[in-house]
Parts: sequence; structure tokens; C-alpha cells
Amino acid sequence: MSAHTDQPAGVTVLGLGPMGRALAAAFLDAGLRTTVWNRTPGRDTDLVARGAVPASSAEEAVAAAPLTVVCVVNYDASDAVLRRDTVTAALKGRTVVNLSADTPARARDTAEWADRHGIRYLDGAIMTPTPTIGTDDAVFLHSGPEELYREHRPVLAALGGTHTHLGEDTGRAAAYDIALLDIFWTAMAGYVHALTVARAEGVTGAELAPFAQGIAAILPPLFTEFAADTDAGTYSGELNPITSAASTMAHVVHASEAHGIDASLMRVIEGQARRVIARGHGADGYTRVADVITGR
Amino acid sequence: MSAHTDQPAGVTVLGLGPMGRALAAAFLDAGLRTTVWNRTPGRDTDLVARGAVPASSAEEAVAAAPLTVVCVVNYDASDAVLRRDTVTAALKGRTVVNLSADTPARARDTAEWADRHGIRYLDGAIMTPTPTIGTDDAVFLHSGPEELYREHRPVLAALGGTHTHLGEDTGRAAAYDIALLDIFWTAMAGYVHALTVARAEGVTGAELAPFAQGIAAILPPLFTEFAADTDAGTYSGELNPITSAASTMAHVVHASEAHGIDASLMRVIEGQARRVIARGHGADGYTRVADVITGR
Ligand SMILES: NC(=O)c1ccc[n+]([C@@H]2O[C@H](COP(=O)([O-])OP(=O)(O)OC[C@H]3O[C@@H](n4cnc5c(N)ncnc54)[C@H](OP(=O)(O)O)[C@@H]3O)[C@@H](O)[C@H]2O)c1
Ligand SMILES: NC(=O)c1ccc[n+]([C@@H]2O[C@H](COP(=O)([O-])OP(=O)(O)OC[C@H]3O[C@@H](n4cnc5c(N)ncnc54)[C@H](OP(=O)(O)O)[C@@H]3O)[C@@H](O)[C@H]2O)c1
Repeated sequence: MSAHTDQPAGVTVLGLGPMGRALAAAFLDAGLRTTVWNRTPGRDTDLVARGAVPASSAEEAVAAAPLTVVCVVNYDASDAVLRRDTVTAALKGRTVVNLSADTPARARDTAEWADRHGIRYLDGAIMTPTPTIGTDDAVFLHSGPEELYREHRPVLAALGGTHTHLGEDTGRAAAYDIALLDIFWTAMAGYVHALTVARAEGVTGAELAPFAQGIAAILPPLFTEFAADTDAGTYSGELNPITSAASTMAHVVHASEAHGIDASLMRVIEGQARRVIARGHGADGYTRVADVITGR
Repeated sequence: MSAHTDQPAGVTVLGLGPMGRALAAAFLDAGLRTTVWNRTPGRDTDLVARGAVPASSAEEAVAAAPLTVVCVVNYDASDAVLRRDTVTAALKGRTVVNLSADTPARARDTAEWADRHGIRYLDGAIMTPTPTIGTDDAVFLHSGPEELYREHRPVLAALGGTHTHLGEDTGRAAAYDIALLDIFWTAMAGYVHALTVARAEGVTGAELAPFAQGIAAILPPLFTEFAADTDAGTYSGELNPITSAASTMAHVVHASEAHGIDASLMRVIEGQARRVIARGHGADGYTRVADVITGR
């Protein structure tokens, strides 16, 4: 089959986990002809009821549209789907936008593979939860050839939210994704831990949550300040020295362990702060811990 | 000296670190007679220039006002200041509001000590950075006798922001404080780590920060949802199963270590998630990790 002639418009979605289903639903809502496929059958029922075209194989699915969006758990999974000969052949001349999460290295490797097989390739990352898809709150990052991004932007726009093209280096979206997932999961880990400590102290989640929102509210200006600090290599502890920070970290460890709650996470955080102090930088701000993490 | 007769109005601040100085400055701005003292001399220069009364000893300082606010690094430090015989004697019949951070157990212990010595005692915690003090953005938590809190509320109000009395159990403010510091420092640790990973990928702090703000913006609704989950003991992974979460945690570990960046923090977080999966709860949401942390 020739890939570019009489190609039907529309989009294909490979991978119908919670996120793939949300993407396909947004394409359908935008009135696009949407073909769907998932490794395990039966995940497309609701989508088909809403007008999606079910494909019986990945090769059939990718042949149905000029643009295929892949959203599976990681690149081992997207490789398992895309790097089968029949699928690779069907993709020739078509475009893949890989919205699965993985490392920058895997993204670059996939771009090379695509290039070798005449497949046009964009990498991307989704920074917001499934309920945001199709709304203004969704955040998508993209990287790879800018021209290709421009070409498919109108279809991607159907997913709603903000789309940012970060550059031609295919690994760039994954680099941001890794850094942002780092922030996200570490914050969530701290929050779930805090909920368990609070509970042990007789404080419910419902009681803690409004104050936790208050903590979320003080993060944005500190994020800006800490970014400027690390970019400039200045680590002012004038307003909050790392000795003071380490002391409060120790309280979290003690209070947790007094209740038999695992505090290994805060032990790592406190340990890194203590190493900064041991090196004679106790009057510096917390960002100085970057030295310890990077082995400087 | 008799404590209650012809007591001068006003307030005393013990501890002139960044936070103590901010508190004293706010009292001065509100027109209160403010007496200040710090273990290491010389920290009061700016405050005295703005009208603060310098005291040459802690006992002299506490004798100068019906209300003493203590803000030092922790309770080892506040004990070192308050539990000296001369200071304890001078405090008899007066009120101490201890805004130093420490564990709920230390707060309760200090309340008992105060009670034994006829000292009226409130515990508190400050949840926002120094620049918020005296502004609407400041957040203060208090616990201890409600009547005592009501009596001193007008003076405390000079510190600006929101004051919440959490209950008569003196440890309650510290319990919230511990949980909120847990969230705060874990989030900051994730952020500084993310800045180092981004930098290794050629992404500056200035480039990452706006997207990090986006992550901060998705936390509040998730905080509410996770709190409800843990209160109810439901761990729905319908929108984001912990298998998917663990996969992205692994990407952070791999991408960090590929750059020689210490990923021990994310290794702990991923390890806890993997334990949930190993127990057969891979389809659950991330909050299920509470079981692992509490050894359930
Ligand atoms: N959910 C969110 O809130 C969210 C937010 C931002 C980004 N993301 C990212 O979006 C991607 C998809 O996430 P998700 O929420 O839909 O759930 P997920 O659990 O990460 O992915 C599930 C999908 O991966 C497929 N899959 C797994 N291993 C496979 C393999 N070896 N071969 C083929 N397919 C395989 C599954 O197919 P089967 O049904 O056959 O197992 C299913 O379609 C992930 O990279 C995730 O990090 C998700
Ligand atoms: N800075 C913030 O952004 C912030 C925000 C919220 C809460 N807090 C809390 O506020 C409290 C004070 O913090 P901070 O920022 O002012 O800095 P800090 O470094 O935590 O505390 C410095 C103060 O503690 C005193 N101190 C330490 N050890 C002492 C001892 N053994 N005996 C007597 N005094 C001792 C210091 O006196 P010397 O000058 O003599 O060393 C100085 O007055 C802490 O509990 C902190 O957690 C701070």
C-alpha cells in the first residue's frame, strides 16, 4: 500500500490505558476520525460506542491514518508495538507521536530507529492527569523536527491545553518530563508520608489537606528562587539556613519513627543536608544540596 | 518582682534568627513595645534602630512583657533558654508562645514543664517563610488552652496572616507542623534534584521553573483526592495505576544515574511502590504505599 496517496484523514491511538483512552476520547470529541488499538482486547468498548474505529491489529490501526499517537507504559512497550516488521512497514511515510514516558536516551534512540525506517517521528510527554485531557488544564511537551510538529499541531490541538515545542533534539521533551516527574512523585511521596504521620497523631487527611494546599501555594515563588540560585551557583541561606532545615527534617524522622512509620525518605533528605553542613556550608541555603547530589 | 502587677504591655521576642527577627519587626510595625534578646549578641542592631528594646539577658527580656514569643532552632534550644532557673522564675505567671519547630512529644513535655512552674504556655508553628511575616500570606498554627490563645490573639494578630487554633492538646500544632514540613522538604528535595537532572540534560533552572509551577498547580486537587483516599482506605488506581507510576519513577532513577547523579531518594520512592506491586496491589493507586510505610 502506498502511504501518502488517498490516505484517510484522522488519527490513530495505540495504547488504551487510562491515558490512551483519554486521548482517544478527546480526538473523538473534536470530531476526528479516530482508530484505536490496544494489546489486550476489550479496552475500546466505550470508545467504539462513541464512534471510534476499532482495529484488529496495530498494523491495521496505523494504516488507517497519517498520524499515530502512541501512549503505552514506557518505551519497552512502545518498542514491542512499533518495532514489529509489519507495523514498521505500515508506518513508512507516516508520522508517529510517542506520548509514552521514558528517558531522553530512549526517545533519541527511537528517533534514530524511525529515521532508518522512513518514519516521521515526534516525541512528547503529558504533564497532567487524565481528567485534564481535552480541557484547558492539559499540558503537553513536544520535541523533534519543528516542521513536523507544525504540520500535526492542528490535530494535537484537539487534545486541549497547552502544547509546547521544546526543540529539535528528540530527547528534550523526555528531559523535561523526567525532571517534572521527579518533582511530582517526590512531592506525592512526601504527601502520602505526611498523611500517615498525621493519622498517627490523630489528624485526618481531611483536616490536613487544607494546610497541605497552603504548602503547595508557597512552592511556586520558591521554585523560581531556587532555580535562580542553582543557575547562578549562589546558595544564600540568609532567610533559612540549611542547619535550620536539617533540624526540622530530624523532627520529621523522630516523630515518624516514634510511631513506627518508615522515615527512610526523610532520612535520605536529612542525610544529604547533614553532608552539606559537614562540609562547612551550614550557613548556606538548602539548594547547596545540589553539590552533594551531583558529587561535586 | 511580682509578675502581674504594673506589668508593661508589649511583647518579648527570644531568638533573633531570620524568623525571630521577622517576628520582632512585625510587632514593631504594629506599634507594640517589643523587647528582644538573642543568645549571641549583635543580632538586634537593626531592630533596636527601629525602636526595639534590647535586653541584656533572657530573664530581663521575659520580665519586660506579659507575653514572650520564643523562636529558636528547636526545643533543645528553647529549653536552653527557658529552663534556666532565673528565666523560669521570671516567667512565673506570664505567657510563653513557643514558635520554635519540634516534635509533638517535645511540645507536650514543655507544656508539662510550664505547668509545673506556673507558666502559661501555648505552642505554635509557622508554616510560611520569613518574607510572609506581617503580610496576609503568613500562616500560623497554635495549640494549647483556648482561653489563653484568645487572650493573646490581639498581640499575635500583629504578625499578620492566618492564625488557627487547632485544639487544647499542646502537641497538635507540632503534629501539623511535622506533617507539613514533611511535604515541604520532600517537595523541595525533589525540586533541587530535578534541577540537577535538568541541568545535566542542558535544561536551565529558568527553563524548567515555569513547568515546575505547572506541577505545583496540579498538586492541590490531588492532595484533596489522596486525603480522601487514605481517610476512606480506598486506593483507586483507575486513573493512574501504581505500576505506571513505578515505571516513571524508574525513568527518573535511570536518567539521573546515567549522568552520575545520586538517585537514592527516588530509589526509596520506587522501592516502596515496587513493594506494593509485589504484594499484588499493582492496579491500585499510589496512595496504597501508605501500607508499606506504616508496616501494615
Ligand atoms: N495516567 C496518568 O495520569 C498519566 C499522566 C501523564 C502521563 N502518563 C503517561 O501516559 C502513558 C500511559 O499511561 P496510562 O495511564 O494509560 O497507563 P499505563 O499503565 O502507564 O499504560 C498502560 C498501557 O500500556 C500498555 N502496555 C504495557 N505494556 C505493554 C507491552 N509490552 N506491549 C504493548 N502495550 C503495553 C497497556 O496495554 P495492556 O492493556 O495490553 O496492558 C496499556 O495500553 C505512560 O507513559 C504514563 O507515564 C499518564
Ligand atoms: N526561616 C524560615 O523560613 C522559617 C519558616 C518557618 C518556621 N521556621 C522556624 O522558626 C524557628 C527559627 O528559625 P530561624 O529561621 O530564625 O533560624 P534557625 O537557624 O532555625 O534558628 C536560629 C535561632 O536559634 C537560636 N539558637 C540555636 N541554638 C540555640 C541554643 N542552644 N540556645 C539558644 N539559642 C539557640 C539562634 O541563636 P544564635 O544566634 O545564638 O545562634 C537563633 O536565634 C525554627 O524552628 C524554624 O524551623 C523558620
